[in-house]
Amino acid sequence: MLELADVQAAARRLEGVAHRTPVFTSRTLDERTGARVHVKAESFQRGGAFKFRGAYTKVSSLPPEALARGVLAYSSGNHAQAVALAARLLGTRATILMPLDAPAAKVEATRGYGAEIVTYDRWTESREEIGARLAAERGLELVKPYDDPLVMAGQGTTALELLDEAPALDVLVTPVGGGGLIAGCATAAKALRPGIRVVGVEPEAGDDTRRSLAAGERIRIEVPRTIADGLQTAEPGELTFEVIRRRVDEVVTVSDAEILDAMAFLFDRLKLVVEPSGAVGIAALLAGQLDVRGRSVGVVVSGGNVGAARFAALLDGRR
Amino acid sequence: MLELADVQAAARRLEGVAHRTPVFTSRTLDERTGARVHVKAESFQRGGAFKFRGAYTKVSSLPPEALARGVLAYSSGNHAQAVALAARLLGTRATILMPLDAPAAKVEATRGYGAEIVTYDRWTESREEIGARLAAERGLELVKPYDDPLVMAGQGTTALELLDEAPALDVLVTPVGGGGLIAGCATAAKALRPGIRVVGVEPEAGDDTRRSLAAGERIRIEVPRTIADGLQTAEPGELTFEVIRRRVDEVVTVSDAEILDAMAFLFDRLKLVVEPSGAVGIAALLAGQLDVRGRSVGVVVSGGNVGAARFAALLDGRR
Repeated sequence: MLELADVQAAARRLEGVAHRTPVFTSRTLDERTGARVHVKAESFQRGGAFKFRGAYTKVSSLPPEALARGVLAYSSGNHAQAVALAARLLGTRATILMPLDAPAAKVEATRGYGAEIVTYDRWTESREEIGARLAAERGLELVKPYDDPLVMAGQGTTALELLDEAPALDVLVTPVGGGGLIAGCATAAKALRPGIRVVGVEPEAGDDTRRSLAAGERIRIEVPRTIADGLQTAEPGELTFEVIRRRVDEVVTVSDAEILDAMAFLFDRLKLVVEPSGAVGIAALLAGQLDVRGRSVGVVVSGGNVGAARFAALLDGRR
Repeated sequence: MLELADVQAAARRLEGVAHRTPVFTSRTLDERTGARVHVKAESFQRGGAFKFRGAYTKVSSLPPEALARGVLAYSSGNHAQAVALAARLLGTRATILMPLDAPAAKVEATRGYGAEIVTYDRWTESREEIGARLAAERGLELVKPYDDPLVMAGQGTTALELLDEAPALDVLVTPVGGGGLIAGCATAAKALRPGIRVVGVEPEAGDDTRRSLAAGERIRIEVPRTIADGLQTAEPGELTFEVIRRRVDEVVTVSDAEILDAMAFLFDRLKLVVEPSGAVGIAALLAGQLDVRGRSVGVVVSGGNVGAARFAALLDGRR
């Protein structure tokens, strides 16, 4: 089982490499929610999302001979950028398996970090199979997007930093895709502040973790169709779910319309560029999916990789 | 003449009241410009722009009897919000004279800070005349948007903070509207780092300060039509121009299209929400209006008060 010491070890590995991202507050947000909200802006993390924390923790832990051969990752985008960037910083090469319909901004950014991109069809092909074949053929080390203790530990450093800045949190809210972020954050938060409530947020169409918690076992759903492209997982990870079932108190869901409202709110009021997946925590608060009245709440805004053109198009669709 | 000591006094007044805004860097921006660029993000200042610095410095310096009667300001937006917010924090009331065509986001935000809004027609009426009448009728103290030593001193604290974080700057770039920001910043920067080059940026259609510097005296132009609504001044201030002619090395201009490109770049790459007026410095660098190859450059991104809907509409117009 992942423990606080693992997250603290990841923090030491990331020291001076990952950004210590800023925490924002907003009087308007506090008024709208009746709470004191602390927004941890991982949009300002290297690579534009929290994913760099886990990827760098993992890649930097590889033995030299594995590093020399290179790393492989499959990802809808942010994990790809993170692995590509970590590989470059550590002097190795990344091969990235990306779905054909990944946002252009994410594909370009990943290529910009020097990675080789291999594409697949998200709806008909299995990225796991293609990834396993590539890894075998080229001798590459697979860097999983969430189901790895080192990746979870790295993501958990987000909560370490947030609690360092806002130590009296009553509630911690994070997005849930495969579960790496919330598993790491819950592990750190429950150890440092046992009474804290840890809440995950999923898109309505992709509530695999909420269902899995209700069933007491991992439930697989159809690949969800949602604007939150970073949260399109069909089931929680095996390792992440073991942590989540013990340490996460609740998972709530938000609609795509609620996500768009939150993105516009974060833009207008906090001047933050947040991608759909990153806005689900604020969406849950603004839409009243979560009663936090009178509480001190930490919300992880997990990434900002939405291009200006896509942002404009998404908001146009809302009018 | 405004001096460093005035800016330092303003900094003491603002301590614990104004935000010390973050400074961002970007590898992509450095590659595009060949420079090391430090972006001072006043979008995260209270009220969403640097204007709070000057407004609070001025309003907090008023004698108690003037504070009791209230303050008045005329502004296209950010100064209005700043004065409204400063007035509320200091327990007095603000009356704000705004043009009818001011962006809705700015009007709403100003009203949200508890100010009374009085509108006028920017193209046919004189805000100075209406302002003078309101001040006389109601006994209100006018808080000028730039032509006041205390306002200039407050704005100059932006450069103090930036030089504190990036002390080896070779060039400092700021937007130029009425000239309060650049006058204050140039005063601080030239005193602390005599060899620094201070460059102002104006919209092409509103190059009153560039023309005034060339002529050696203040030149009045038509009210410029540009998307940079915060820089629609027709001539430099009397006091600001005295500072600018001595301490500003150069003023360059950018087109509206270059401003839009910079806004999209700041959104995509730095994850920053920047209004048109705030993006002119980065626009000048990206468009090659300014050769900064090999230099350490500080750029003031002066504000982020562009609503998400207006941002989307502006970018749509670009396609």
